[in-house]
Amino acid sequence: MDETPFGDDTLHEECGVFGIFQRTDAAAVVTLGLHALQHRGQEAAGIVAHDGTQFHVERHAGLIGDTFTKASVLERLPGHSAIGHTRYATTGGGGLRNVQPFFAELSAGGFAVAHNGNITNALTVQRELQRRGSIFSSTSDTETILHLVATSGARAFVDKLIDALSRLEGAFSLVGLSANSMIGVRDPLGIRPLVLGEFEGSLILASETCALDIIGAEFVRDIEPGEMAVVTESGVESIFPFQSRRPRFCIFEYVYFARPDSNVEGRNVYDIRKKIGIELARESHVDADVVVPVPDSGVPASIGYAQEAKLPFELGIIRNHYVGRTFIQPTDSIRHMGVKLKHNANRKMIEGKRIVLVDDSIVRGTTSQKIVQMVREAGASEVHMRIASPPTSASCFYGVDTPEKAKLLASRMTIEEMAEFIQVDSLAFLSIDGLYRACGETGRSKISPQFCDACFTGDYPTSLTDQDGQDNVRQLSLLGGAG
Amino acid sequence: MDETPFGDDTLHEECGVFGIFQRTDAAAVVTLGLHALQHRGQEAAGIVAHDGTQFHVERHAGLIGDTFTKASVLERLPGHSAIGHTRYATTGGGGLRNVQPFFAELSAGGFAVAHNGNITNALTVQRELQRRGSIFSSTSDTETILHLVATSGARAFVDKLIDALSRLEGAFSLVGLSANSMIGVRDPLGIRPLVLGEFEGSLILASETCALDIIGAEFVRDIEPGEMAVVTESGVESIFPFQSRRPRFCIFEYVYFARPDSNVEGRNVYDIRKKIGIELARESHVDADVVVPVPDSGVPASIGYAQEAKLPFELGIIRNHYVGRTFIQPTDSIRHMGVKLKHNANRKMIEGKRIVLVDDSIVRGTTSQKIVQMVREAGASEVHMRIASPPTSASCFYGVDTPEKAKLLASRMTIEEMAEFIQVDSLAFLSIDGLYRACGETGRSKISPQFCDACFTGDYPTSLTDQDGQDNVRQLSLLGGAG
Amino acid sequence: MDETPFGDDTLHEECGVFGIFQRTDAAAVVTLGLHALQHRGQEAAGIVAHDGTQFHVERHAGLIGDTFTKASVLERLPGHSAIGHTRYATTGGGGLRNVQPFFAELSAGGFAVAHNGNITNALTVQRELQRRGSIFSSTSDTETILHLVATSGARAFVDKLIDALSRLEGAFSLVGLSANSMIGVRDPLGIRPLVLGEFEGSLILASETCALDIIGAEFVRDIEPGEMAVVTESGVESIFPFQSRRPRFCIFEYVYFARPDSNVEGRNVYDIRKKIGIELARESHVDADVVVPVPDSGVPASIGYAQEAKLPFELGIIRNHYVGRTFIQPTDSIRHMGVKLKHNANRKMIEGKRIVLVDDSIVRGTTSQKIVQMVREAGASEVHMRIASPPTSASCFYGVDTPEKAKLLASRMTIEEMAEFIQVDSLAFLSIDGLYRACGETGRSKISPQFCDACFTGDYPTSLTDQDGQDNVRQLSLLGGAG
Amino acid sequence: MDETPFGDDTLHEECGVFGIFQRTDAAAVVTLGLHALQHRGQEAAGIVAHDGTQFHVERHAGLIGDTFTKASVLERLPGHSAIGHTRYATTGGGGLRNVQPFFAELSAGGFAVAHNGNITNALTVQRELQRRGSIFSSTSDTETILHLVATSGARAFVDKLIDALSRLEGAFSLVGLSANSMIGVRDPLGIRPLVLGEFEGSLILASETCALDIIGAEFVRDIEPGEMAVVTESGVESIFPFQSRRPRFCIFEYVYFARPDSNVEGRNVYDIRKKIGIELARESHVDADVVVPVPDSGVPASIGYAQEAKLPFELGIIRNHYVGRTFIQPTDSIRHMGVKLKHNANRKMIEGKRIVLVDDSIVRGTTSQKIVQMVREAGASEVHMRIASPPTSASCFYGVDTPEKAKLLASRMTIEEMAEFIQVDSLAFLSIDGLYRACGETGRSKISPQFCDACFTGDYPTSLTDQDGQDNVRQLSLLGGAG
Repeated sequence: MDETPFGDDTLHEECGVFGIFQRTDAAAVVTLGLHALQHRGQEAAGIVAHDGTQFHVERHAGLIGDTFTKASVLERLPGHSAIGHTRYATTGGGGLRNVQPFFAELSAGGFAVAHNGNITNALTVQRELQRRGSIFSSTSDTETILHLVATSGARAFVDKLIDALSRLEGAFSLVGLSANSMIGVRDPLGIRPLVLGEFEGSLILASETCALDIIGAEFVRDIEPGEMAVVTESGVESIFPFQSRRPRFCIFEYVYFARPDSNVEGRNVYDIRKKIGIELARESHVDADVVVPVPDSGVPASIGYAQEAKLPFELGIIRNHYVGRTFIQPTDSIRHMGVKLKHNANRKMIEGKRIVLVDDSIVRGTTSQKIVQMVREAGASEVHMRIASPPTSASCFYGVDTPEKAKLLASRMTIEEMAEFIQVDSLAFLSIDGLYRACGETGRSKISPQFCDACFTGDYPTSLTDQDGQDNVRQLSLLGGAG
Repeated sequence: MDETPFGDDTLHEECGVFGIFQRTDAAAVVTLGLHALQHRGQEAAGIVAHDGTQFHVERHAGLIGDTFTKASVLERLPGHSAIGHTRYATTGGGGLRNVQPFFAELSAGGFAVAHNGNITNALTVQRELQRRGSIFSSTSDTETILHLVATSGARAFVDKLIDALSRLEGAFSLVGLSANSMIGVRDPLGIRPLVLGEFEGSLILASETCALDIIGAEFVRDIEPGEMAVVTESGVESIFPFQSRRPRFCIFEYVYFARPDSNVEGRNVYDIRKKIGIELARESHVDADVVVPVPDSGVPASIGYAQEAKLPFELGIIRNHYVGRTFIQPTDSIRHMGVKLKHNANRKMIEGKRIVLVDDSIVRGTTSQKIVQMVREAGASEVHMRIASPPTSASCFYGVDTPEKAKLLASRMTIEEMAEFIQVDSLAFLSIDGLYRACGETGRSKISPQFCDACFTGDYPTSLTDQDGQDNVRQLSLLGGAG
Repeated sequence: MDETPFGDDTLHEECGVFGIFQRTDAAAVVTLGLHALQHRGQEAAGIVAHDGTQFHVERHAGLIGDTFTKASVLERLPGHSAIGHTRYATTGGGGLRNVQPFFAELSAGGFAVAHNGNITNALTVQRELQRRGSIFSSTSDTETILHLVATSGARAFVDKLIDALSRLEGAFSLVGLSANSMIGVRDPLGIRPLVLGEFEGSLILASETCALDIIGAEFVRDIEPGEMAVVTESGVESIFPFQSRRPRFCIFEYVYFARPDSNVEGRNVYDIRKKIGIELARESHVDADVVVPVPDSGVPASIGYAQEAKLPFELGIIRNHYVGRTFIQPTDSIRHMGVKLKHNANRKMIEGKRIVLVDDSIVRGTTSQKIVQMVREAGASEVHMRIASPPTSASCFYGVDTPEKAKLLASRMTIEEMAEFIQVDSLAFLSIDGLYRACGETGRSKISPQFCDACFTGDYPTSLTDQDGQDNVRQLSLLGGAG
Repeated sequence: MDETPFGDDTLHEECGVFGIFQRTDAAAVVTLGLHALQHRGQEAAGIVAHDGTQFHVERHAGLIGDTFTKASVLERLPGHSAIGHTRYATTGGGGLRNVQPFFAELSAGGFAVAHNGNITNALTVQRELQRRGSIFSSTSDTETILHLVATSGARAFVDKLIDALSRLEGAFSLVGLSANSMIGVRDPLGIRPLVLGEFEGSLILASETCALDIIGAEFVRDIEPGEMAVVTESGVESIFPFQSRRPRFCIFEYVYFARPDSNVEGRNVYDIRKKIGIELARESHVDADVVVPVPDSGVPASIGYAQEAKLPFELGIIRNHYVGRTFIQPTDSIRHMGVKLKHNANRKMIEGKRIVLVDDSIVRGTTSQKIVQMVREAGASEVHMRIASPPTSASCFYGVDTPEKAKLLASRMTIEEMAEFIQVDSLAFLSIDGLYRACGETGRSKISPQFCDACFTGDYPTSLTDQDGQDNVRQLSLLGGAG
């Protein structure tokens, strides 16, 4: 939901997936679903459709609404079943080679797969497959899944897939398409979301419920952590091929990634964000005149904060909605002007006031610095920064493009130092327990935490095989890959 | 600020202008200014720069951030002074021929002009010029200005321009560039805005103050209605060549067109919109549970309404920010699905509640119909629509793309019929006096109204020469022209 | 017929025109006609079609076969009458603004015009028109014609056109299109060609007969020098509005510009070129082993030379037909390699032999130098250069892109110096009388020359108003214009 | 050398390869080499460069001169060694996926390969590899080579490559690039050409010598049939891994494919073609007035024929050099006009004469029919067709895009029937022994033929594993593959 006009200082979810089985104009429906999931990845998208005989593949850089809505593109995607993927980042120069879904003509027939998450042993597995003679045509972790299926010794296709998936570590919510089935899988911890929907009798798999709403489809249920749901003409068959574990859904989906109108894992995202604001107001009260969100992601928490603190809520910062991916400062002289491409303070609402400024998180801190400076220049008498999450102090290895740990402000400064760095009168983060409370828990279970909160706690719920013992190994999927 | 995913059911301002005189990288600065004015026209833009010897022209379809930020484009615009224009609509197939600024090599030297507004006798003047041998290369009313300058019998360039402008009727806030001056003019009524700013000693003309803020420039003052401000190396010289009249600034700029963080004619737009919400709450109280804005334009009035009515303010409708110009429903089967490309109701905030729904205006009513239906399907127990302006019952001929009168819902229905049509439990518009009160007046002066409010009252403050006695004559500038 | 891989060292005709009146799919027929005239201008083309109500205009850079054959382009050109133009060069950065035909909506109705030639007083006329208030939208001399028509005081349209044309000096073979007529005009001297054809009852105007052959149309006759042929539903009406003069057709059309299969002014071009070779062999015999053409333009003269000299004719130099407009040497290190992008000597045919090398002309001499060096490196024992025209020692101002006089090798060196410069054992040009003999004359009439041969003799048959008294004034039409 | 304006009625070579080892700006040099080989494939091209650390890949549809000469493209190909490939046809919709060179990151390191020819058991091998788990990302036979290398059990890289190649049947002249070597291989029969050259100390591999000439490189020698030449920093090491056989070079390379200025297998192509003309004149004398080539490929044989027959040689048919790939007849009405897009008869040279018309071959006969009709309409009194090769009666499976056998005119008609079909007064083909004589042999050895002449004789020198027992199996490489 966020571009990078102040430099790359936000976390980026990564990928959205959507599939529909047995429905006229399947690819057009997938186009709509991906449009609703655009906030999960704005750089490129792909769709694979099956027309009963053949698979068709299209991949394009750019927004869904600019690429896949063209009649000429949809005409190249005939078929009654289709899956699609939208993604952040085309790092690595791999161009469209890394855009999902991936498709291969296997000896068992054609198979396409689209993936949200990140496989933490992909590089290790890839090297082993290469030693045996597999040739990779991308740098995406998702291709690893196809090669594992291709080289599996199992006989039935579903068994090959189970065989492949049981080799994987990390986070994966994936949607696959074969000639006669659509398959949805979540990793045993269910780190990334995946839901099952239905539209006029056709079954749908999607990352979030907002992708059901856009077409008026019904929400059926979440795919469960560790579930492999095989959709065929006979309906859905559920298989649980992995060892059972306590689920740990990504709590940052509530803080920032998911769309506010989505319901994920039984909770409404907007509602959680308001509750986060309420918890934040309770934990870190300050005397002030007005609550101002950093738009757009800080708005729901601000509303909650203002209601709880009984302060007026005002749009003291206005966002320019036309900031696109490409608005890089055009010349040197411009680069040094400190241009406000994305946000502008509304002086009338700010001048002479004590401001509570609410944002979702602090990554490197550079954006916060600039926002605060802008608010001060607009005449705020005091600026109190309130962050709707705990300090982000560790990298994510499950499909989010986080800077390396050393660049995270919270990993190298105390809260006091951070307040000094961004030049605020006071700074407070939500506590980890406060965040869990906003999510309806009584607090974080130390023995068996209810969520993946590694970015706040450094407590990674899976092995990090590719990472261990290596410096600077980033996620394979984000090295020009997918998510 | 608004695309057209539900069909074309919003009013479109029209054009934004920006110029800077004597500043390094002038075209790059204009690019930033136009980016801040993008809400005034998203379809195409142009910049003319003068490098001391030559004029350079670039015109591109698309958003500023996608076109003019490319180094290759800016390299073709060297110079120390530049003016630019951003516009809505390329109707008429004229392609880039109609994109402003217009430039001509006159016998008096090169002259470029960019225009916000609409000249209501342009067609009449154009026909007369053609009879005398002038050849038009566009269908824009702005080109008429150039031909009038070219054929003027006056000797000095400024006199030619005065001669030309005194032939015009209608609304024009324009910025011109000659080899040694930049000129800003507002029509005698000052219907459209135009401000003077300064950045590190360089003078700026811009449609709104938000275009000064983006680069950190100072606001100097509004160009006055009827003023011609000639900026040269010696500074600004003000000329008042027209007969003096009571100004009538467009009141719809406050309701919808201008950016909330702009100050126009001495008033802060966001502040006026909040006051509109307050007036609206006072005039049309209703028992309800929650105030929900139609995003994004209904948000400030909603906040005012909620504060005045002491009701909670909630984002019960979420907007997809990725809806672009081109997301036309790709196939027939999709077109009939009633797809929610742009807005989605957030059921959790709406279900079982009595909703006050706040929007800025009703044009044809089709969007309101769909929004209300969506809110009802999300479980609202009651829907009370509150409109932050009086009924829009007449076309604008001053640079806004309004449907013809017969298509305006308010021109063919009573308020009760409209309520029935959009299926709400109650519907109320702000009164015209309420709107004037929100703008700081005690009410509308019947003898000498303080604003142009023709779209609400049908009281047009200028002659409509092209229009009179003719059916279906739309504004020349919008027939593929400029604004 | 010639790109510029060795640098710009050829003369460039300039423009081709084609029109058809009253024929289904008129624009598609024009596309074919322009394709056959592609050798007269490869850089850009335009077509204007009239559909009974409206005019439609398309302009594209690139080869006809790459641009105007697309269904989407032709669909935008509906109509039963159409004219088109193909041109060399987009010098001046004017982009497509300078691509013909030019079209204007005049008070007398729409009128389009396409022009081959160059108007030698265009700049003078343009300045006068600008003083009176005309605004030019291009830098092409052709636009001048439209403005003269627009500002003419005559009443009937044809009279306006006659009025306009009688103001012009120089060379013009032009084709115009109004709502109910197609008009072909040649200047009084008939410097450039223009023919009348017929296809299944529809009349055609074209620069050369090869454009009739491509569609199987009949050649009717040449438009006569000084003739204005007005084609309407009633047929052709001929008007001779100019004072009668002895025609002087451009003799270089025979030497190089026209296509060998065209018949111009009653003579077959290939046949003339062979006769040029025969005259050349007679005038400048040399003992040799083999005649080798510089392909492709030197081939017909070589065949004539070889037949007359009773020497074998061999393709000792092979041309790469894939050399396009854009093959500029990509890197510095490549630029210094002396790459043979276009021609390669065939050593087997050359080694140890005495070569007669036949080319059409020498412009700057740089190409000849390289060709000779290449032939020597392939082992030729002697190289005798024979040029199928007299020395090119003066610039053309009638629509050919010639270098300024000072850059023409023949204007600054004797033949002996030129032989030394290009490093040949002997060099001979055809005499001017030899050239006239090849064209069927007994020689050049000194009192009243039969052709325009200004590029060989400096004897310009018209005033050069723009040129006189000014240094470095090039042809307006080629300063980014048309020809 | 031939586009398809009359429909697809020519044979298409297939592919050209070029590589250079250890040279500044390697990719720019490859660009030039491919430009010289453009006649071997005009549809798309690719280059892989190695910069000492990394491989870089670029693939583009279109002519080399339009794509790879751009600075932006070459900048993405840094490196001191590079190989490239140019190809005919993108059949199959595979888009750029099938454009060579193919590159894979193998466990042994990166390896790129470009291939001219066709592997006749590629499909069979591919299916076996898929059963074992290999995933193909294209439909090209060339990718098979990479997978065979990847899955080879041999240890050293060169041994893996030998292992892979020994599994292949058919024709392959290939160039490979690893991090520290460039490798050239010809199949045991040497069906396709491949030469070794040197430029200022850097070694080059190229399909034809004309690609050495363009940069002024020296010809070193032909790579021998069955040779694997491994170029490293130490020089060239030759390995002969295959069982020795009598070479059978493709004789059609002399007839049509190779460029006339190339020397292949020790013979000059232009010279052979002239000798073909001489043999043809001896075998099939006819009383006539003039010899006319079908341009451009019939020209050298015509010159030979005319010299031997002591008849004048004239360009009675003129070719339009601007016929590109895309000049498809734009509308139905045009399609039925019998448009002469490519060739035009020059009536002056033909009318009333007995014509010997010389062409290189007859494929389907449709082009010949149209050419003959055009020559008759231009007034020829007699038309005698002479073909510079034996009747083409069998498909090629070695990298040439031949129609299936049933569509070859010579496979379904006698010579008399063919003469009737194309409407000539007489028709004669060169005898197979005459063709061998022109190549310097005394005739075709029945026991052990000196060339591959399968297209004339049906005598295929290798197994056709994919083909045998299957109808309609075309060459894998041409089903969207490479050549």
